[in-house]
Amino acid sequence: MMDLLLPKVDDIEAPLLEAMRYSSLGGGKRLRPFIVQQSAALFGVDPRCAIRVGAAVEFMHCYSLIHDDLPAMDDSNLRRGKPSCHVKFGEPTAILAGDALQSLAFQVLGSQETHSDAMVRCELVTALAKAAGAPGMAGGQMIDLLAETQTLDVGTITRLQRMKTGEIFSFCATAGAIMGRGSVRQFHALHNYAQEFGLAFQIADDLLDLEGNVQDTGKPIGQDVAAGKATFVSVLGADRARSQAGLLSGQAAGALDLWDESADLLRETARYIVERDG
Amino acid sequence: MMDLLLPKVDDIEAPLLEAMRYSSLGGGKRLRPFIVQQSAALFGVDPRCAIRVGAAVEFMHCYSLIHDDLPAMDDSNLRRGKPSCHVKFGEPTAILAGDALQSLAFQVLGSQETHSDAMVRCELVTALAKAAGAPGMAGGQMIDLLAETQTLDVGTITRLQRMKTGEIFSFCATAGAIMGRGSVRQFHALHNYAQEFGLAFQIADDLLDLEGNVQDTGKPIGQDVAAGKATFVSVLGADRARSQAGLLSGQAAGALDLWDESADLLRETARYIVERDG
Repeated sequence: MMDLLLPKVDDIEAPLLEAMRYSSLGGGKRLRPFIVQQSAALFGVDPRCAIRVGAAVEFMHCYSLIHDDLPAMDDSNLRRGKPSCHVKFGEPTAILAGDALQSLAFQVLGSQETHSDAMVRCELVTALAKAAGAPGMAGGQMIDLLAETQTLDVGTITRLQRMKTGEIFSFCATAGAIMGRGSVRQFHALHNYAQEFGLAFQIADDLLDLEGNVQDTGKPIGQDVAAGKATFVSVLGADRARSQAGLLSGQAAGALDLWDESADLLRETARYIVERDG
Repeated sequence: MMDLLLPKVDDIEAPLLEAMRYSSLGGGKRLRPFIVQQSAALFGVDPRCAIRVGAAVEFMHCYSLIHDDLPAMDDSNLRRGKPSCHVKFGEPTAILAGDALQSLAFQVLGSQETHSDAMVRCELVTALAKAAGAPGMAGGQMIDLLAETQTLDVGTITRLQRMKTGEIFSFCATAGAIMGRGSVRQFHALHNYAQEFGLAFQIADDLLDLEGNVQDTGKPIGQDVAAGKATFVSVLGADRARSQAGLLSGQAAGALDLWDESADLLRETARYIVERDG
Protein backbone atom coordinates (compact mmCIF):
# COMPACT_ATOMS: atom_id res chain seq x y z
CA MET A 1 0.00 0.00 0.00
CA MET A 2 2.79 2.46 0.85
CA ASP A 3 4.31 1.68 -2.54
CA LEU A 4 1.03 2.54 -4.27
CA LEU A 5 0.61 5.78 -2.31
CA LEU A 6 4.09 7.08 -3.07
CA PRO A 7 4.53 9.22 -6.21
CA LYS A 8 6.12 7.48 -9.18
CA VAL A 9 9.61 8.32 -10.40
CA ASP A 10 9.25 9.59 -13.96
CA ASP A 11 10.36 13.19 -14.28
CA ILE A 12 13.21 15.58 -13.63
CA GLU A 13 12.46 15.74 -9.90
CA ALA A 14 13.18 11.98 -9.72
CA PRO A 15 15.84 12.28 -6.96
CA LEU A 16 13.18 13.58 -4.55
CA LEU A 17 10.79 10.73 -5.32
CA GLU A 18 13.58 8.15 -5.13
CA ALA A 19 14.65 9.48 -1.73
CA MET A 20 11.05 9.32 -0.47
CA ARG A 21 10.73 5.71 -1.62
CA TYR A 22 14.21 4.74 -0.36
CA SER A 23 13.45 5.95 3.15
CA SER A 24 9.95 4.59 3.48
CA LEU A 25 9.88 1.26 1.62
CA GLY A 26 11.63 -2.01 2.36
CA GLY A 27 12.81 -1.54 5.90
CA GLY A 28 11.78 -0.98 9.48
CA LYS A 29 9.60 -2.95 11.85
CA ARG A 30 6.37 -1.25 10.69
CA LEU A 31 5.42 -1.15 14.36
CA ARG A 32 3.19 1.92 14.02
CA PRO A 33 1.04 0.62 11.13
CA PHE A 34 0.75 -2.68 13.02
CA ILE A 35 -0.66 -0.91 16.07
CA VAL A 36 -3.09 1.03 13.88
CA GLN A 37 -4.31 -2.22 12.34
CA GLN A 38 -4.70 -3.94 15.70
CA SER A 39 -6.53 -0.94 17.13
CA ALA A 40 -8.83 -0.82 14.11
CA ALA A 41 -9.57 -4.55 14.46
CA LEU A 42 -10.91 -3.97 17.99
CA PHE A 43 -13.69 -1.85 16.46
CA GLY A 44 -14.37 -3.92 13.36
CA VAL A 45 -13.02 -1.17 11.09
CA ASP A 46 -12.52 -2.05 7.40
CA PRO A 47 -8.85 -3.18 7.18
CA ARG A 48 -8.43 -1.14 3.99
CA CYS A 49 -9.01 2.03 6.02
CA ALA A 50 -6.54 0.88 8.67
CA ILE A 51 -3.88 0.15 6.07
CA ARG A 52 -4.13 3.66 4.65
CA VAL A 53 -3.98 5.29 8.09
CA GLY A 54 -1.03 3.03 8.94
CA ALA A 55 0.74 4.10 5.75
CA ALA A 56 0.17 7.77 6.63
CA VAL A 57 1.67 7.37 10.08
CA GLU A 58 4.62 5.43 8.68
CA PHE A 59 5.28 8.23 6.15
CA MET A 60 5.28 10.63 9.10
CA HIS A 61 7.63 8.40 11.07
CA CYS A 62 10.01 8.03 8.09
CA TYR A 63 10.13 11.79 7.54
CA SER A 64 11.15 12.22 11.20
CA LEU A 65 13.93 9.63 10.85
CA ILE A 66 15.30 11.40 7.75
CA HIS A 67 15.39 14.77 9.51
CA ASP A 68 16.70 13.33 12.81
CA ASP A 69 19.63 11.74 10.95
CA LEU A 70 20.71 15.01 9.27
CA PRO A 71 24.23 16.33 10.03
CA ALA A 72 22.74 19.33 11.88
CA MET A 73 20.65 16.99 14.09
CA ASP A 74 21.90 13.57 15.25
CA ASP A 75 24.38 13.29 12.33
CA SER A 76 23.71 9.58 11.86
CA ASN A 77 24.98 7.84 8.73
CA LEU A 78 23.20 4.49 9.09
CA ARG A 79 19.46 3.78 9.27
CA ARG A 80 17.71 0.43 8.98
CA GLY A 81 21.04 -1.09 7.97
CA LYS A 82 21.43 1.22 4.97
CA PRO A 83 23.13 4.59 4.44
CA SER A 84 20.92 7.38 5.83
CA CYS A 85 18.89 9.38 3.31
CA HIS A 86 21.28 12.37 3.27
CA VAL A 87 24.30 10.06 2.86
CA LYS A 88 22.67 8.42 -0.15
CA PHE A 89 20.98 11.43 -1.79
CA GLY A 90 22.67 14.50 -0.30
CA GLU A 91 21.41 16.85 2.36
CA PRO A 92 19.12 19.13 0.29
CA THR A 93 17.23 16.18 -1.22
CA ALA A 94 16.93 14.54 2.22
CA ILE A 95 15.43 17.68 3.76
CA LEU A 96 12.90 17.90 0.90
CA ALA A 97 12.10 14.18 1.03
CA GLY A 98 11.24 14.51 4.72
CA ASP A 99 9.11 17.59 4.03
CA ALA A 100 7.26 15.87 1.18
CA LEU A 101 6.64 12.69 3.22
CA GLN A 102 4.97 14.80 5.90
CA SER A 103 2.71 16.40 3.28
CA LEU A 104 1.94 12.96 1.85
CA ALA A 105 0.82 11.68 5.25
CA PHE A 106 -1.88 14.37 5.42
CA GLN A 107 -2.81 13.94 1.77
CA VAL A 108 -3.56 10.27 2.49
CA LEU A 109 -5.53 11.00 5.68
CA GLY A 110 -7.63 13.69 4.03
CA SER A 111 -8.59 11.67 0.97
CA GLN A 112 -11.97 10.02 0.61
CA GLU A 113 -10.58 6.49 0.16
CA THR A 114 -9.26 6.52 3.73
CA HIS A 115 -12.67 6.69 5.41
CA SER A 116 -16.17 7.40 4.15
CA ASP A 117 -16.91 9.82 7.02
CA ALA A 118 -15.23 13.22 6.47
CA MET A 119 -15.59 14.02 10.17
CA VAL A 120 -13.45 10.96 11.00
CA ARG A 121 -10.85 12.00 8.44
CA CYS A 122 -10.66 15.49 9.93
CA GLU A 123 -10.22 14.03 13.42
CA LEU A 124 -7.37 11.87 12.12
CA VAL A 125 -5.76 14.90 10.47
CA THR A 126 -5.84 17.11 13.56
CA ALA A 127 -4.78 14.26 15.85
CA LEU A 128 -1.77 13.38 13.68
CA ALA A 129 -0.88 17.06 13.19
CA LYS A 130 -0.76 17.58 16.97
CA ALA A 131 1.15 14.35 17.51
CA ALA A 132 3.75 15.33 14.90
CA GLY A 133 4.06 19.06 15.55
CA ALA A 134 5.27 21.32 18.34
CA PRO A 135 3.02 19.71 21.01
CA GLY A 136 4.38 16.28 20.03
CA MET A 137 7.23 14.84 18.02
CA ALA A 138 8.91 18.09 16.88
CA GLY A 139 8.69 19.56 20.39
CA GLY A 140 10.13 16.37 21.87
CA GLN A 141 12.99 16.39 19.39
CA MET A 142 13.70 19.99 20.43
CA ILE A 143 14.04 18.91 24.08
CA ASP A 144 16.15 15.96 22.92
CA LEU A 145 18.60 18.39 21.28
CA LEU A 146 18.74 20.39 24.51
CA ALA A 147 19.49 17.13 26.37
CA GLU A 148 22.96 17.20 24.80
CA THR A 149 23.90 20.38 26.65
CA GLN A 150 21.56 20.48 29.66
CA THR A 151 21.07 18.13 32.58
CA LEU A 152 17.48 16.90 32.48
CA ASP A 153 15.70 15.26 35.42
CA VAL A 154 13.60 12.11 35.03
CA GLY A 155 10.41 14.18 34.87
CA THR A 156 11.68 16.20 31.94
CA ILE A 157 13.03 13.12 30.15
CA THR A 158 9.61 11.51 30.59
CA ARG A 159 7.93 14.57 29.09
CA LEU A 160 10.48 14.60 26.26
CA GLN A 161 9.78 10.97 25.36
CA ARG A 162 6.01 11.25 25.73
CA MET A 163 6.19 14.06 23.17
CA LYS A 164 8.87 12.67 20.87
CA THR A 165 7.62 9.11 20.43
CA GLY A 166 4.62 8.72 22.75
CA GLU A 167 2.21 11.04 20.96
CA ILE A 168 2.62 9.24 17.63
CA PHE A 169 2.12 5.86 19.36
CA SER A 170 -0.93 7.34 21.01
CA PHE A 171 -2.25 8.38 17.61
CA CYS A 172 -1.74 4.82 16.35
CA ALA A 173 -3.42 3.14 19.31
CA THR A 174 -6.42 5.48 19.34
CA ALA A 175 -6.84 5.57 15.54
CA GLY A 176 -9.13 2.54 15.71
CA ALA A 177 -11.38 4.28 18.22
CA ILE A 178 -11.55 7.35 15.98
CA MET A 179 -12.27 5.30 12.83
CA GLY A 180 -14.70 2.98 14.59
CA ARG A 181 -16.40 5.66 16.70
CA GLY A 182 -15.42 4.01 19.99
CA SER A 183 -16.55 5.34 23.36
CA VAL A 184 -14.58 7.93 25.33
CA ARG A 185 -13.72 5.15 27.80
CA GLN A 186 -12.28 2.97 25.02
CA PHE A 187 -10.36 5.93 23.58
CA HIS A 188 -8.80 6.67 26.97
CA ALA A 189 -7.87 3.02 27.58
CA LEU A 190 -6.00 2.92 24.26
CA HIS A 191 -4.40 6.27 25.01
CA ASN A 192 -3.14 4.96 28.36
CA TYR A 193 -1.85 1.80 26.68
CA ALA A 194 0.14 3.94 24.25
CA GLN A 195 1.54 6.22 26.94
CA GLU A 196 3.05 3.31 28.91
CA PHE A 197 3.99 1.52 25.72
CA GLY A 198 5.82 4.56 24.34
CA LEU A 199 7.97 5.00 27.45
CA ALA A 200 8.78 1.29 27.61
CA PHE A 201 9.72 1.41 23.92
CA GLN A 202 11.99 4.39 24.48
CA ILE A 203 13.80 2.88 27.48
CA ALA A 204 14.37 -0.28 25.44
CA ASP A 205 15.74 1.93 22.66
CA ASP A 206 18.12 3.65 25.10
CA LEU A 207 19.29 0.24 26.34
CA LEU A 208 19.90 -0.93 22.76
CA ASP A 209 22.02 2.16 22.16
CA LEU A 210 24.12 1.00 25.11
CA GLU A 211 24.06 -2.78 24.77
CA GLY A 212 22.81 -3.62 21.27
CA ASN A 213 24.78 -4.20 18.10
CA VAL A 214 24.68 -2.49 14.75
CA GLN A 215 23.64 -5.66 12.85
CA ASP A 216 20.40 -6.08 14.81
CA THR A 217 19.46 -2.42 15.21
CA GLY A 218 20.55 -1.29 11.75
CA LYS A 219 21.82 1.99 13.18
CA PRO A 220 24.98 3.19 14.93
CA ILE A 221 25.40 2.23 18.58
CA GLY A 222 26.63 4.35 21.49
CA GLN A 223 25.46 7.64 19.99
CA ASP A 224 23.68 8.87 23.13
CA VAL A 225 26.73 8.33 25.33
CA ALA A 226 29.02 9.90 22.70
CA ALA A 227 26.74 12.95 22.54
CA GLY A 228 26.58 13.09 26.37
CA LYS A 229 22.79 12.95 26.05
CA ALA A 230 20.54 12.67 29.12
CA THR A 231 18.44 9.51 28.70
CA PHE A 232 16.53 7.18 31.04
CA VAL A 233 19.57 4.92 31.07
CA SER A 234 22.07 7.67 31.85
CA VAL A 235 19.89 8.95 34.70
CA LEU A 236 18.53 5.68 36.16
CA GLY A 237 21.36 3.29 35.26
CA ALA A 238 20.85 0.23 33.03
CA ASP A 239 19.40 -2.10 35.69
CA ARG A 240 16.76 0.25 37.04
CA ALA A 241 15.90 1.33 33.50
CA ARG A 242 15.41 -2.31 32.50
CA SER A 243 13.07 -3.07 35.37
CA GLN A 244 11.20 0.17 34.72
CA ALA A 245 10.68 -0.86 31.09
CA GLY A 246 9.28 -4.22 32.22
CA LEU A 247 6.93 -2.48 34.63
CA LEU A 248 5.67 -0.05 31.99
CA SER A 249 5.17 -2.87 29.49
CA GLY A 250 3.00 -4.70 32.03
CA GLN A 251 1.00 -1.55 32.73
CA ALA A 252 0.46 -1.08 28.99
CA ALA A 253 -0.99 -4.60 28.72
CA GLY A 254 -3.12 -3.95 31.82
CA ALA A 255 -4.62 -0.80 30.29
CA LEU A 256 -6.49 -3.01 27.81
CA ASP A 257 -8.69 -4.75 30.40
CA LEU A 258 -11.80 -3.56 28.59
CA TRP A 259 -11.05 -6.12 25.88
CA ASP A 260 -10.80 -9.92 25.96
CA GLU A 261 -8.35 -11.90 23.84
CA SER A 262 -9.16 -9.61 20.88
CA ALA A 263 -6.48 -7.28 22.32
CA ASP A 264 -3.91 -10.03 22.87
CA LEU A 265 -1.70 -8.97 19.96
CA LEU A 266 -1.50 -5.44 21.36
CA ARG A 267 -0.58 -6.90 24.78
CA GLU A 268 2.05 -9.13 23.20
CA THR A 269 3.48 -6.18 21.29
CA ALA A 270 4.01 -4.35 24.58
CA ARG A 271 6.04 -7.35 25.77
CA TYR A 272 7.93 -7.66 22.49
CA ILE A 273 9.15 -4.06 22.41
CA VAL A 274 11.07 -4.43 25.69
CA GLU A 275 12.59 -7.77 24.71
CA ARG A 276 13.60 -7.01 21.12
CA ASP A 277 17.20 -6.97 19.85
CA GLY A 278 16.71 -4.26 17.25
CA MET B 1 -5.03 35.24 14.14
CA MET B 2 -1.66 33.65 13.35
CA ASP B 3 -0.45 34.83 16.76
CA LEU B 4 -3.40 33.09 18.45
CA LEU B 5 -2.89 29.87 16.48
CA LEU B 6 0.81 29.57 17.30
CA PRO B 7 1.75 27.62 20.44
CA LYS B 8 2.77 29.74 23.45
CA VAL B 9 6.34 29.86 24.72
CA ASP B 10 6.30 28.55 28.26
CA ASP B 11 8.35 25.36 28.60
CA ILE B 12 11.75 23.87 27.99
CA GLU B 13 11.12 23.51 24.24
CA ALA B 14 10.80 27.33 24.09
CA PRO B 15 13.47 27.79 21.36
CA LEU B 16 11.30 25.81 18.92
CA LEU B 17 8.21 27.88 19.64
CA GLU B 18 10.19 31.14 19.50
CA ALA B 19 11.63 30.16 16.12
CA MET B 20 8.15 29.33 14.80
CA ARG B 21 6.84 32.72 15.95
CA TYR B 22 9.93 34.61 14.73
CA SER B 23 9.58 33.24 11.21
CA SER B 24 5.84 33.59 10.82
CA LEU B 25 4.83 36.77 12.67
CA GLY B 26 5.60 40.40 11.95
CA GLY B 27 6.93 40.30 8.42
CA GLY B 28 6.17 39.46 4.82
CA LYS B 29 3.56 40.76 2.43
CA ARG B 30 0.91 38.25 3.54
CA LEU B 31 0.07 37.90 -0.14
CA ARG B 32 -1.23 34.33 0.19
CA PRO B 33 -3.71 34.98 3.03
CA PHE B 34 -4.85 38.09 1.13
CA ILE B 35 -5.69 36.00 -1.94
CA VAL B 36 -7.53 33.46 0.23
CA GLN B 37 -9.61 36.25 1.75
CA GLN B 38 -10.41 37.81 -1.62
CA SER B 39 -11.32 34.43 -3.07
CA ALA B 40 -13.55 33.68 -0.09
CA ALA B 41 -15.27 37.06 -0.45
CA LEU B 42 -16.35 36.14 -3.99
CA PHE B 43 -18.46 33.34 -2.51
CA GLY B 44 -19.73 35.14 0.58
CA VAL B 45 -17.71 32.85 2.88
CA ASP B 46 -17.52 33.84 6.56
CA PRO B 47 -14.30 35.92 6.82
CA ARG B 48 -13.39 34.06 10.04
CA CYS B 49 -13.04 30.85 8.00
CA ALA B 50 -10.96 32.64 5.38
CA ILE B 51 -8.63 34.08 8.03
CA ARG B 52 -7.93 30.63 9.45
CA VAL B 53 -7.29 29.11 6.01
CA GLY B 54 -5.07 32.09 5.19
CA ALA B 55 -3.12 31.53 8.41
CA ALA B 56 -2.65 27.85 7.54
CA VAL B 57 -1.26 28.64 4.11
CA GLU B 58 1.02 31.34 5.54
CA PHE B 59 2.39 28.81 8.09
CA MET B 60 3.09 26.49 5.15
CA HIS B 61 4.77 29.29 3.21
CA CYS B 62 6.90 30.31 6.21
CA TYR B 63 8.03 26.71 6.76
CA SER B 64 9.19 26.59 3.13
CA LEU B 65 11.14 29.84 3.52
CA ILE B 66 12.92 28.51 6.64
CA HIS B 67 13.96 25.29 4.89
CA ASP B 68 14.86 27.05 1.59
CA ASP B 69 17.22 29.37 3.50
CA LEU B 70 19.13 26.53 5.20
CA PRO B 71 22.87 26.22 4.51
CA ALA B 72 22.30 22.94 2.63
CA MET B 73 19.68 24.60 0.41
CA ASP B 74 19.96 28.26 -0.76
CA ASP B 75 22.21 29.20 2.20
CA SER B 76 20.56 32.58 2.65
CA ASN B 77 21.25 34.60 5.78
CA LEU B 78 18.63 37.32 5.39
CA ARG B 79 14.85 36.99 5.15
CA ARG B 80 12.24 39.73 5.41
CA GLY B 81 15.01 42.10 6.46
CA LYS B 82 15.99 39.98 9.48
CA PRO B 83 18.52 37.19 10.05
CA SER B 84 17.18 33.90 8.63
CA CYS B 85 15.75 31.43 11.12
CA HIS B 86 18.86 29.22 11.22
CA VAL B 87 21.14 32.26 11.66
CA LYS B 88 19.07 33.39 14.64
CA PHE B 89 18.26 30.02 16.26
CA GLY B 90 20.74 27.54 14.80
CA GLU B 91 20.21 24.93 12.13
CA PRO B 92 18.60 22.12 14.18
CA THR B 93 15.96 24.43 15.64
CA ALA B 94 15.28 25.94 12.21
CA ILE B 95 14.71 22.50 10.65
CA LEU B 96 12.30 21.60 13.46
CA ALA B 97 10.51 24.95 13.32
CA GLY B 98 9.83 24.39 9.62
CA ASP B 99 8.61 20.86 10.29
CA ALA B 100 6.31 22.00 13.09
CA LEU B 101 4.89 24.89 11.05
CA GLN B 102 3.90 22.41 8.34
CA SER B 103 2.11 20.25 10.94
CA LEU B 104 0.41 23.35 12.36
CA ALA B 105 -0.96 24.28 8.93
CA PHE B 106 -2.82 20.94 8.74
CA GLN B 107 -3.89 21.10 12.38
CA VAL B 108 -5.60 24.42 11.64
CA LEU B 109 -7.25 23.20 8.41
CA GLY B 110 -8.56 20.02 10.05
CA SER B 111 -10.08 21.70 13.08
CA GLN B 112 -13.78 22.37 13.37
CA GLU B 113 -13.43 26.15 13.85
CA THR B 114 -12.09 26.48 10.30
CA HIS B 115 -15.30 25.38 8.56
CA SER B 116 -18.49 23.74 9.77
CA ASP B 117 -18.50 21.21 6.91
CA ALA B 118 -15.97 18.41 7.49
CA MET B 119 -16.02 17.53 3.79
CA VAL B 120 -14.81 21.05 2.98
CA ARG B 121 -12.06 20.78 5.58
CA CYS B 122 -10.89 17.47 4.08
CA GLU B 123 -10.82 19.00 0.61
CA LEU B 124 -8.70 21.86 1.94
CA VAL B 125 -6.33 19.39 3.63
CA THR B 126 -5.76 17.24 0.55
CA ALA B 127 -5.49 20.28 -1.74
CA LEU B 128 -2.88 21.95 0.47
CA ALA B 129 -1.01 18.66 0.98
CA LYS B 130 -0.70 18.18 -2.79
CA ALA B 131 0.26 21.82 -3.32
CA ALA B 132 3.00 21.58 -0.67
CA GLY B 133 4.30 18.08 -1.31
CA ALA B 134 6.14 16.24 -4.08
CA PRO B 135 3.57 17.18 -6.78
CA GLY B 136 3.92 20.85 -5.79
CA MET B 137 6.24 23.01 -3.73
CA ALA B 138 8.72 20.35 -2.57
CA GLY B 139 8.97 18.87 -6.09
CA GLY B 140 9.49 22.34 -7.55
CA GLN B 141 12.21 23.10 -5.03
CA MET B 142 13.91 19.82 -6.04
CA ILE B 143 13.98 20.96 -9.69
CA ASP B 144 15.18 24.37 -8.51
CA LEU B 145 18.18 22.70 -6.83
CA LEU B 146 18.91 20.82 -10.06
CA ALA B 147 18.77 24.15 -11.91
CA GLU B 148 22.10 25.05 -10.29
CA THR B 149 23.90 22.25 -12.13
CA GLN B 150 21.72 21.51 -15.16
CA THR B 151 20.65 23.65 -18.10
CA LEU B 152 16.86 23.84 -18.06
CA ASP B 153 14.73 24.95 -21.02
CA VAL B 154 11.84 27.40 -20.66
CA GLY B 155 9.35 24.52 -20.54
CA THR B 156 11.09 22.92 -17.58
CA ILE B 157 11.52 26.26 -15.79
CA THR B 158 7.79 26.88 -16.29
CA ARG B 159 6.98 23.47 -14.78
CA LEU B 160 9.41 24.14 -11.92
CA GLN B 161 7.73 27.44 -11.04
CA ARG B 162 4.19 26.13 -11.47
CA MET B 163 5.09 23.48 -8.89
CA LYS B 164 7.27 25.56 -6.56
CA THR B 165 5.07 28.64 -6.16
CA GLY B 166 2.13 28.18 -8.53
CA GLU B 167 0.39 25.30 -6.75
CA ILE B 168 0.25 27.14 -3.43
CA PHE B 169 -1.11 30.26 -5.18
CA SER B 170 -3.63 27.99 -6.86
CA PHE B 171 -4.66 26.62 -3.47
CA CYS B 172 -5.16 30.20 -2.21
CA ALA B 173 -7.18 31.35 -5.20
CA THR B 174 -9.44 28.29 -5.27
CA ALA B 175 -9.87 28.07 -1.48
CA GLY B 176 -12.90 30.37 -1.67
CA ALA B 177 -14.55 28.07 -4.23
CA ILE B 178 -13.90 25.08 -1.97
CA MET B 179 -15.20 26.84 1.16
CA GLY B 180 -18.15 28.42 -0.64
CA ARG B 181 -19.03 25.40 -2.76
CA GLY B 182 -18.48 27.24 -6.03
CA SER B 183 -19.15 25.67 -9.44
CA VAL B 184 -16.53 23.73 -11.37
CA ARG B 185 -16.42 26.63 -13.84
CA GLN B 186 -15.67 29.10 -11.05
CA PHE B 187 -13.04 26.79 -9.58
CA HIS B 188 -11.28 26.51 -12.93
CA ALA B 189 -11.38 30.27 -13.53
CA LEU B 190 -9.66 30.86 -10.19
CA HIS B 191 -7.19 28.07 -10.90
CA ASN B 192 -6.29 29.70 -14.24
CA TYR B 193 -5.94 33.08 -12.56
CA ALA B 194 -3.46 31.56 -10.08
CA GLN B 195 -1.46 29.76 -12.76
CA GLU B 196 -0.79 32.96 -14.71
CA PHE B 197 -0.41 34.94 -11.51
CA GLY B 198 2.17 32.51 -10.11
CA LEU B 199 4.39 32.67 -13.18
CA ALA B 200 4.16 36.46 -13.33
CA PHE B 201 5.05 36.60 -9.63
CA GLN B 202 8.05 34.37 -10.17
CA ILE B 203 9.42 36.30 -13.14
CA ALA B 204 9.07 39.50 -11.10
CA ASP B 205 10.97 37.74 -8.29
CA ASP B 206 13.74 36.74 -10.69
CA LEU B 207 13.96 40.35 -11.92
CA LEU B 208 14.18 41.64 -8.35
CA ASP B 209 17.05 39.23 -7.71
CA LEU B 210 18.81 40.94 -10.64
CA GLU B 211 17.71 44.56 -10.30
CA GLY B 212 16.21 45.00 -6.82
CA ASN B 213 17.88 46.10 -3.63
CA VAL B 214 18.20 44.43 -0.26
CA GLN B 215 16.32 47.20 1.60
CA ASP B 216 13.11 46.72 -0.39
CA THR B 217 13.21 42.95 -0.81
CA GLY B 218 14.53 42.15 2.69
CA LYS B 219 16.66 39.34 1.27
CA PRO B 220 20.05 39.08 -0.43
CA ILE B 221 20.26 40.12 -4.10
CA GLY B 222 22.06 38.40 -6.97
CA GLN B 223 21.80 34.92 -5.47
CA ASP B 224 20.49 33.24 -8.64
CA VAL B 225 23.31 34.59 -10.80
CA ALA B 226 25.90 33.71 -8.13
CA ALA B 227 24.53 30.15 -8.00
CA GLY B 228 24.47 29.98 -11.81
CA LYS B 229 20.80 29.08 -11.55
CA ALA B 230 18.61 28.74 -14.65
CA THR B 231 15.71 31.21 -14.29
CA PHE B 232 13.25 32.92 -16.65
CA VAL B 233 15.56 35.93 -16.64
CA SER B 234 18.73 33.97 -17.38
CA VAL B 235 17.03 32.15 -20.26
CA LEU B 236 14.85 34.92 -21.75
CA GLY B 237 16.91 37.98 -20.80
CA ALA B 238 15.56 40.79 -18.60
CA ASP B 239 13.58 42.65 -21.27
CA ARG B 240 11.68 39.68 -22.67
CA ALA B 241 11.10 38.39 -19.14
CA ARG B 242 9.61 41.76 -18.13
CA SER B 243 7.21 41.86 -21.05
CA GLN B 244 6.27 38.23 -20.43
CA ALA B 245 5.45 39.06 -16.80
CA GLY B 246 3.21 41.92 -17.94
CA LEU B 247 1.44 39.61 -20.39
CA LEU B 248 0.85 36.93 -17.75
CA SER B 249 -0.43 39.50 -15.27
CA GLY B 250 -2.98 40.68 -17.84
CA GLN B 251 -4.03 37.09 -18.57
CA ALA B 252 -4.48 36.49 -14.84
CA ALA B 253 -6.83 39.48 -14.60
CA GLY B 254 -8.66 38.28 -17.71
CA ALA B 255 -9.26 34.83 -16.20
CA LEU B 256 -11.69 36.46 -13.75
CA ASP B 257 -14.23 37.56 -16.37
CA LEU B 258 -16.94 35.54 -14.60
CA TRP B 259 -16.97 38.22 -11.90
CA ASP B 260 -17.74 41.93 -11.99
CA GLU B 261 -15.96 44.49 -9.82
CA SER B 262 -16.17 42.06 -6.89
CA ALA B 263 -12.93 40.55 -8.27
CA ASP B 264 -11.19 43.91 -8.81
CA LEU B 265 -8.83 43.49 -5.85
CA LEU B 266 -7.64 40.13 -7.25
CA ARG B 267 -7.12 41.79 -10.65
CA GLU B 268 -5.23 44.66 -9.04
CA THR B 269 -3.07 42.20 -7.10
CA ALA B 270 -2.02 40.60 -10.39
CA ARG B 271 -0.86 44.04 -11.56
CA TYR B 272 0.83 44.85 -8.25
CA ILE B 273 2.98 41.73 -8.15
CA VAL B 274 4.77 42.60 -11.40
CA GLU B 275 5.31 46.25 -10.42
CA ARG B 276 6.44 45.79 -6.81
CA ASP B 277 9.89 46.74 -5.51
CA GLY B 278 10.09 43.99 -2.88
